[in-house]
Amino acid sequence: MPTLVMKFGGTSVATLDRIRRAAKRVGREVANGYDVIVIVSAMSGKTNELVGWVEETSPLFDAREYDAVVSSGEQVTAGLMALTLQEMDVPARSWAGWQVPLKTNSAHASARIEEIPTDNINTKFAQGMKVAVVAGFQGISPEGRITTLGRGGSDTTAVAFAAAFGAERCDIYTDVDGIYTTDPRITSKARKLDKIAFEEMLELASLGAKVLQTRSVELAMRYKVRLRVLSSFEDNDENAGTLVCSEEDIMESNVVAGVAFSRDEAKMTLLSVADRPGIAAAIFGPLAEASVNVDMIVQNISEDGRTDMTFSLPVNQIGRAEKAMAEAKASGEVKFSELVIDSDVAKVSVVGIGMRSHAGVASQMFKALRDEGINIKVITTSEIKISVLIDRKYMELAVQALHDTFGLDKAA
Amino acid sequence: MPTLVMKFGGTSVATLDRIRRAAKRVGREVANGYDVIVIVSAMSGKTNELVGWVEETSPLFDAREYDAVVSSGEQVTAGLMALTLQEMDVPARSWAGWQVPLKTNSAHASARIEEIPTDNINTKFAQGMKVAVVAGFQGISPEGRITTLGRGGSDTTAVAFAAAFGAERCDIYTDVDGIYTTDPRITSKARKLDKIAFEEMLELASLGAKVLQTRSVELAMRYKVRLRVLSSFEDNDENAGTLVCSEEDIMESNVVAGVAFSRDEAKMTLLSVADRPGIAAAIFGPLAEASVNVDMIVQNISEDGRTDMTFSLPVNQIGRAEKAMAEAKASGEVKFSELVIDSDVAKVSVVGIGMRSHAGVASQMFKALRDEGINIKVITTSEIKISVLIDRKYMELAVQALHDTFGLDKAA
Repeated sequence: MPTLVMKFGGTSVATLDRIRRAAKRVGREVANGYDVIVIVSAMSGKTNELVGWVEETSPLFDAREYDAVVSSGEQVTAGLMALTLQEMDVPARSWAGWQVPLKTNSAHASARIEEIPTDNINTKFAQGMKVAVVAGFQGISPEGRITTLGRGGSDTTAVAFAAAFGAERCDIYTDVDGIYTTDPRITSKARKLDKIAFEEMLELASLGAKVLQTRSVELAMRYKVRLRVLSSFEDNDENAGTLVCSEEDIMESNVVAGVAFSRDEAKMTLLSVADRPGIAAAIFGPLAEASVNVDMIVQNISEDGRTDMTFSLPVNQIGRAEKAMAEAKASGEVKFSELVIDSDVAKVSVVGIGMRSHAGVASQMFKALRDEGINIKVITTSEIKISVLIDRKYMELAVQALHDTFGLDKAA
Repeated sequence: MPTLVMKFGGTSVATLDRIRRAAKRVGREVANGYDVIVIVSAMSGKTNELVGWVEETSPLFDAREYDAVVSSGEQVTAGLMALTLQEMDVPARSWAGWQVPLKTNSAHASARIEEIPTDNINTKFAQGMKVAVVAGFQGISPEGRITTLGRGGSDTTAVAFAAAFGAERCDIYTDVDGIYTTDPRITSKARKLDKIAFEEMLELASLGAKVLQTRSVELAMRYKVRLRVLSSFEDNDENAGTLVCSEEDIMESNVVAGVAFSRDEAKMTLLSVADRPGIAAAIFGPLAEASVNVDMIVQNISEDGRTDMTFSLPVNQIGRAEKAMAEAKASGEVKFSELVIDSDVAKVSVVGIGMRSHAGVASQMFKALRDEGINIKVITTSEIKISVLIDRKYMELAVQALHDTFGLDKAA
């Protein structure tokens, strides 16, 4: 039998009624001839409640106990989903992570999946079970303790199961009906994509489109798992949602697939830094140690052996970054004349694998921004992405202009 | 190191604050030099919520899924308790039932404990862990699935651990401060007992004193586990609560230890039953199949080959019992002239191991009831207990009269 993985997020299993609706979708896929592995999240709000209790009890908690507590939410949903399916006469049973067993390393609260043996579940499939309902987000460490994969880890669980069982597809049911060219709240012209390449999705996911966890997309890309994102609140036909797949599976596509953005960015510039080998390490080492997530980095042309170093970071990490730089200056590790902070910037990016073969995307982007009178503060580029830092107040305008200039409201 | 088992029920761990108070008690016992095994229930209300979800999802639920769902509550409390102890610098970790592993049979939702290997936990004690916090009420089946022991199973878990680890004592922390001679709501003269024998506690537990689960007392008696029942809401000294222990450990005791009662009883009489071998089986077989909990049974003297058969049952099972008897009559299995139902009775019992060596307890009991004008409808006796069925409206009066006549307000 072909296998299908279906993953339901917290809002899709928030109530018994929603679990029932999700179970009906599962039942339809069983009727279509699939053996189905269902990955469930905790009912929405549950994980936050449990995390809240742990943090209130012990601010610097033992992550092993955190995992023991927090993993319980998915266990509940898995049992309830199995019961719901049984009520519909679909042979089903639930599996906690440790029962599969989904083996992870011992990095509690953010464990990495190491192996998913398929024997236990496949034996049950062979005996007539049609649906294995697996508690997402959790596994078991070599020491026999429960681990969790970090927030959003249920997506990763789903993709890992799809890879391990050679599933035909991994359907991620969520509260949006697919991946859009940009956030529809910014422009009504935003269009749902039928397909998107893994690489594009990866850039969009890490750039702030919160639909899929980055790790799950990476994993899907590595194991060529066809991922479909679709709504659990709408009736879906065969072509519903967005398929995240290999480039080869996409016949035609726009040069630019989407416009991503990140609102709460800040920019820091160290003026007149001594330009010597190792200076980047001297600056970004302490920032990493202070848990500052540095994103874009630009080093200006050196003049008289001195340069300016600019980088972007989340606006709520400014304090930590300032402190780290002040200490690095005080210790003599990093010399600079001044630290300039701009806390009112946003990042806007265009992403598309078509850029590889199409010249002129960058210049078209810059022209569109210029035509709107938007000043660009920092530019970084990768093979399939161009990002700019601009004043935050122009963010929506920039997204709309770029969406228009690349014709994203129309399919290729 | 001597080992102590401490069990905290749902109300004792209902909030993070109460968990903290319970943890302080644990910390004190660690300071006293004990290795402690803490058994926790789910936060009060949690199990009911989970059971409610299961029953709403699937009225005739798969008990394996019920167990997977319902066991999660204790897992949460165990983790939170371990974290709380760690915050107090007490080395502690949590254990789910399957991690110990507490091995049970496969009777899901009411599993029996088969074995508790001590190696895993003892290894940790040897490494410096001072407290093992174990999720109560749960275990693992030979098939590797989570089982639960039935409601109140955390008491049984605690006693089983005390037996397996040869604990010095098993302290059951609850919302009352001990075992009383009778319910203080019925008479203000009710007195807390310092000690009570297992056999007495067993009769009291099954007779309606809801402090300890019957199974846990049976288990404690079999393995001679010294059980102490005490309040988690009061400061306790060395002699707080009530010690449930072997007869030999009780130097002096009243002839009668306590007066138990059960309010919602009913009495059924089958008139003019053919008195032949196998008639009792013919009557009580169908009742058992209909899940009627028959308690007292009295068969009158036979006359002309016919007799009357009287039995008591919970008042809310009258319907089921009537139906079963009507069917047995229709099928010709049981012949009787009439079924007489009295749904307004209560059971009152006096319990005491002293009865074994003291004659006259029954007559003293009957005299006290006669003096209050209370008519006795049914009498049954055992070695350490005398029970009577009376009109429900006289129940409180009967309890007070018996409490007085046996001088239960004064210690032996």
